[in-house]
Amino acid sequence: MSVRQLVNDPADFVPEALQGLQRAHPGLIRYHEDPAYVVRAGDSSAPKVALVSGGGSGHEPLHTGFVGEGMLDAAVPGAVFASPTAFQIRAAIGAADRGRGVLLIVKNYTGDVLNFRIAAELAADDGIEVRSVLVDDDLATDGQEEGGPGRRGTAAVVAVEKICGAAAERGASLAELEALGARIARSARTMALALASCTQPGQPRPSFDLPDGEIEFGVGIHGEHGVGRRPFGSARELVGELTRPLLAALGLDRGDSVLAIVNGLGATHALELSVVHRELTAFLDDRGIDVARSLVGSYVTSLDMRGCSVTLLRADDELVDLWDAPVRTPALTW
Amino acid sequence: MSVRQLVNDPADFVPEALQGLQRAHPGLIRYHEDPAYVVRAGDSSAPKVALVSGGGSGHEPLHTGFVGEGMLDAAVPGAVFASPTAFQIRAAIGAADRGRGVLLIVKNYTGDVLNFRIAAELAADDGIEVRSVLVDDDLATDGQEEGGPGRRGTAAVVAVEKICGAAAERGASLAELEALGARIARSARTMALALASCTQPGQPRPSFDLPDGEIEFGVGIHGEHGVGRRPFGSARELVGELTRPLLAALGLDRGDSVLAIVNGLGATHALELSVVHRELTAFLDDRGIDVARSLVGSYVTSLDMRGCSVTLLRADDELVDLWDAPVRTPALTW
Repeated sequence: MSVRQLVNDPADFVPEALQGLQRAHPGLIRYHEDPAYVVRAGDSSAPKVALVSGGGSGHEPLHTGFVGEGMLDAAVPGAVFASPTAFQIRAAIGAADRGRGVLLIVKNYTGDVLNFRIAAELAADDGIEVRSVLVDDDLATDGQEEGGPGRRGTAAVVAVEKICGAAAERGASLAELEALGARIARSARTMALALASCTQPGQPRPSFDLPDGEIEFGVGIHGEHGVGRRPFGSARELVGELTRPLLAALGLDRGDSVLAIVNGLGATHALELSVVHRELTAFLDDRGIDVARSLVGSYVTSLDMRGCSVTLLRADDELVDLWDAPVRTPALTW
Repeated sequence: MSVRQLVNDPADFVPEALQGLQRAHPGLIRYHEDPAYVVRAGDSSAPKVALVSGGGSGHEPLHTGFVGEGMLDAAVPGAVFASPTAFQIRAAIGAADRGRGVLLIVKNYTGDVLNFRIAAELAADDGIEVRSVLVDDDLATDGQEEGGPGRRGTAAVVAVEKICGAAAERGASLAELEALGARIARSARTMALALASCTQPGQPRPSFDLPDGEIEFGVGIHGEHGVGRRPFGSARELVGELTRPLLAALGLDRGDSVLAIVNGLGATHALELSVVHRELTAFLDDRGIDVARSLVGSYVTSLDMRGCSVTLLRADDELVDLWDAPVRTPALTW
């Protein structure tokens, strides 16, 4: 049986979805069609450093759902799983800039890194000060070949956007935000697994098949294969497999504190994510690691992939205080 | 290939998920394990009418995700797709009651109606004043056999909980809330379609199969068959099929105003729901019907069903004002 989506012409999928998003949140965001980007609606005259992120579509609510007070000033969506162009990013920088500089939050993928860098250079040529934070939290891609692209950027980007967004509202400088973003990226790692792959709009088959009794471990967010197959198991066993390497990579130990993100990859039910969160907190409780804050939901998706990721960020009072600061976006509000 | 979930023993699925939910939102909700219900955390001493809802699990974030300021005071979860017991509901009424009476918000299913009625009688015996609102918005089940169960209750329950919740915070009486809830239920209808069925935890196969090129039209939220098969089509065509009968049933015409809920049934991607919202607003724009407010997301799910529902509620200034009032729950905050 083939997989169907609620879509018109697949070529129009992303722009039509953005029209629908803007229509649902007219008080929060404005969608600029050509070149395509999403900026905050309403008055943006108060001076602050502007935050701009973006990347391929298919990961919603990332990044367009995180535009608003306390988080991003603009988001730049590419086609599904494809980087936005430098021209789009440059236009979004211009729309977001309030005269105090622009921080780009970039997930570590070759196309994104290249296009955000070109856009930053174009903006600098026009007198806009731009700095970047590279988010590369995916532990599954750690220690791959020398000179390679390095770790992928996945769900830790939500923490970078939320925490730097709060600091920007409080008046942090561009240099301070660059340092804060780098510190979050350094202190966060993610592991993901898939119970079933995802399907591109207009294509009837998933990007890979999984035999009964196996999961894909260490998947990214683009329907690519993970780093290996592992046996299917209980939520408890699978959460342990995801979390153990995170503790090792971050050097987390008894008495440490973390901010945890349990993220659905697209088609994972809220009940399942709640069970994963239960198992994650039990695992960390057992090891004396304090869960200062949790975010549980589907925030960085891979189209309709079944599965989840676990992100841990080493927490301190400053990060938790910024995490708790008000946020008002289509996908995250408190 | 069988369908797998992130679950331990399926018998523990709901209680473990509720433990995980409580752990993610300790400031908002408290999960009482036996009998199982979820109530607001923190101080609940200020007098107001208490709102209690509930029903089978598998529809999350409904209802447990809607407990908090501006919405429910307590939610009572049954097993997956099964009514909670009268004993559970009675306990939740007692935990929620603040001395000004309790409004029960009940989706129209035989088991729920029966158990909420028994619980109301038990509470009344103990001196708690209880009234009920029956939500029966599913147009697919309209006009079925005389003396039958009537229309099912689906996504309009979110509007009843949000709007009555706001009125309760503002001090509305139990009788006023009963009338308001009945008015919302009367003024709202829903139609749903499935592109693929759902799968119960611990069972490897979906509850029904769909041939290529067909959708299930008029589905409910329990994996049951819809009222018929229809050809698969574009989002535009499918939204038209969902919406046309809603306009007829509610007598909506040029100049009228609605509150719209575009609801994912569990495994539908945010981009698809945004496309559906675009098509819905375009359809209503063409007919001169004003969309006063929209809610777009997966709020009343049927486990991992692929598909969506469209709910329209005839709006007026009072309902929109209550809709806009502050809400702070795990799943809905503004």
